Amino acid sequence: MKTRILITIGDINGIGPEIVLKTLKNSRIIKKYDITVVSPFSVLSHYAGKFNIRLTADNFNILPIGGEKVKIETGRITAASGFISGLAVQTAIELCLAGDYDAIVTAPISKKALNLGGYRFDGHTEMLGALGKAKETCMMMLSGRLNMGFATTHPPLKKVAGLITRDLLKRKLSVCYDSLRKDLLVKKPLVGVLGLNPHAGDSGLIGDEESRVISPAIRLLNAKYGNDKFNGPFSPDAYFASKAYRKFDMTFAMYHDQGFIPFKMLAGHYGTNFTAGLSFVRTSPDHGTAFDIAGKNKASEASLSEAIKWADRIFKNRVKNRH
Amino acid sequence: MKTRILITIGDINGIGPEIVLKTLKNSRIIKKYDITVVSPFSVLSHYAGKFNIRLTADNFNILPIGGEKVKIETGRITAASGFISGLAVQTAIELCLAGDYDAIVTAPISKKALNLGGYRFDGHTEMLGALGKAKETCMMMLSGRLNMGFATTHPPLKKVAGLITRDLLKRKLSVCYDSLRKDLLVKKPLVGVLGLNPHAGDSGLIGDEESRVISPAIRLLNAKYGNDKFNGPFSPDAYFASKAYRKFDMTFAMYHDQGFIPFKMLAGHYGTNFTAGLSFVRTSPDHGTAFDIAGKNKASEASLSEAIKWADRIFKNRVKNRH
Repeated sequence: MKTRILITIGDINGIGPEIVLKTLKNSRIIKKYDITVVSPFSVLSHYAGKFNIRLTADNFNILPIGGEKVKIETGRITAASGFISGLAVQTAIELCLAGDYDAIVTAPISKKALNLGGYRFDGHTEMLGALGKAKETCMMMLSGRLNMGFATTHPPLKKVAGLITRDLLKRKLSVCYDSLRKDLLVKKPLVGVLGLNPHAGDSGLIGDEESRVISPAIRLLNAKYGNDKFNGPFSPDAYFASKAYRKFDMTFAMYHDQGFIPFKMLAGHYGTNFTAGLSFVRTSPDHGTAFDIAGKNKASEASLSEAIKWADRIFKNRVKNRH
Repeated sequence: MKTRILITIGDINGIGPEIVLKTLKNSRIIKKYDITVVSPFSVLSHYAGKFNIRLTADNFNILPIGGEKVKIETGRITAASGFISGLAVQTAIELCLAGDYDAIVTAPISKKALNLGGYRFDGHTEMLGALGKAKETCMMMLSGRLNMGFATTHPPLKKVAGLITRDLLKRKLSVCYDSLRKDLLVKKPLVGVLGLNPHAGDSGLIGDEESRVISPAIRLLNAKYGNDKFNGPFSPDAYFASKAYRKFDMTFAMYHDQGFIPFKMLAGHYGTNFTAGLSFVRTSPDHGTAFDIAGKNKASEASLSEAIKWADRIFKNRVKNRH
C-alpha cells in the first residue's frame, strides 16, 4: 500500500506553490506515493499558468480549502496568505488525527503572516505540537550525513539559556531517543549532546549550565535508557571540527544556530525537518518562504522531494516497528 | 631582515612545550625567522628529554623566565603552571612594547590555571589588550578559506545579547576594518556581519537586536568608511549554507560558537588566532592546552607553525603598508 501523504501549500505568496507544482510534475514521485495537496484550487491554477506547468490530476488529489476568492500577492506578507497557510496545516492535522492520512509534508510558511492570519503560533513545530495532541514533540533535522535534535526551536538568543532546564532536556531527549528507535529503526541509539557555552563551559569557568543542568540530565537519561546512550556535553566547535558527530546517531543542539549552522553546511540542500513525537509523520524542506525569489521560477523542489521521501520512509519504519 | 618572533611556552602542564619543541626541530622554520622562546629552561629540557628531542640552540634563542624551580605536573591545572604561562606572556608583551621584538606567538594556556597563578584575565586576548596598551583589540581567526572577526570572545551564552551594543560593534568592526587594510593589505575590505538571532531576527519576530543595534551600527560604519563596506546582518545558518562568506574579506560573528563552529569546520587544523589592534603582532594556534593528551607525544605542531607564518606575514605587511 502506498503511503498517504498530505502536502500543505505553505505561504501562497512565497515559493510554496512553485515547489509543490514542480514536485507534482515529477511522475516518479507522484506514482510512488498517494499524494493529496491541501490548497485553494485557484492558487494552484494561478501559479501553474504563470510557470506554464500543465498538470493532469490523474496521479494526485487536491483537497481544496479557503474558497475561491483567495488574494495572491506574490512576495508580500499578508493576513490572507497567513490564514490560508494556517488553514492548510490545521486541515491536514485533523485528517491525520482522524486516521485518513499517514503523513504531512509542509511547504514553507511565514510566521509573521501566520500570526496576521489569526494563527498564534511561533511556527509549524509549535502549531503541530499544540493541534496534533502530542504530549511532547522535538524538532529534528535529518540527512544522510548527520541527524540533529534541538532543545529549543526559534527563541531570541537572549532567552535560550533561561529555557534550558533539566526537565526540558529530559523530555526532548526522550522524544529523540524514542524516535531514533521507532522512526529510524536504530536499535541502540547513541546521542551526542552539545554544551551551551563556549568550550562547554570550560570546567565551569564559562557559565554553569553544563554542570548544573546538562550533565545531570544526561546522567538521569543514562540511568533510564542504559549507560552511555547519551554522551557529552561536548565543546560545540571542537565537536564539529573533529567530526565527532560521525560516532553518534544524533547530535543534540541547545539552540537554533548552534545546530543549523553545521547541519546546513554538511547536509547542503538535502536536509529534512522532522517533528518527532507526533502520532502521524510530519516533515518539511529545510528552507523558508524565500519571498525574494517568489514568482520568478527560480526555486528548487529538491528539498521538498527529499522531505516526501523521508515522510514515506519514516511511516514505513513505524509500520515495521509495530510488527 | 628576519622577523623577530617571541614564542611563549603556554601552560607547562599542557601540550605547549611539546608543540614548541617540535617546531624548533623544524629547520626550515627556525632558519626563516629570528625565533626566541620565552620559557623556563628546565621545562624545555624536561620535555626534550621525555620526547627524546635533541636541540642545538644555534638557530634560536631561549629567554629564560621563572627561575629553575618550576614544578611540572603534566595534565594538571596548577597555580605554578598558570603563573609561568602568565609570566611568559607578560614578559613578551613588555619586550615588544620596548621595540625589541616584532611579534608574539603564544602557545595555549589554561584560563583557570592563569587565574590561579595570579593573572586575573579571561584569556590571552584580554591580557594582551590590557597589558599591551591598545585602545581596542579584536579577536580574529585567519585561514586561507575565510577570516572571522568576533564581537565577543568567551562570555557565557546568557550574557552575549546584553554585551552586543552599537558602541561595541562600531569599535570592534573598526579594528577589523583597519586590520584588513593594514595587516592583510586588502585595499577595499568587504565585511559580512552576522545577525544575533535565528534568521537574523526574521524581520523583528525573533528578538530586536538586529533592528535596534546591528543594522544601525552597520549604517554608521558605512557612513564613515564608504558605502557597502559592511553588509548584513545576515541569517547565520543561511549565510554559511550558501557560502556567502566567499564574497567577503571577513565574516563578523556576534559570539564564540556562531563563528568558531563554521570556522573550524572550514579551516580544519590551519586556523590562526590573531589579536587585531595591538602595536605589535600576536598570533596563536586555534587549539587549547589539550591536557588529556599532554606528555603523550601525540600533539601536532601544525597549527603553531601556521601561527608563526601568519605572524611573519602580518609583520611584513605592516612594514609594507608604512612605506
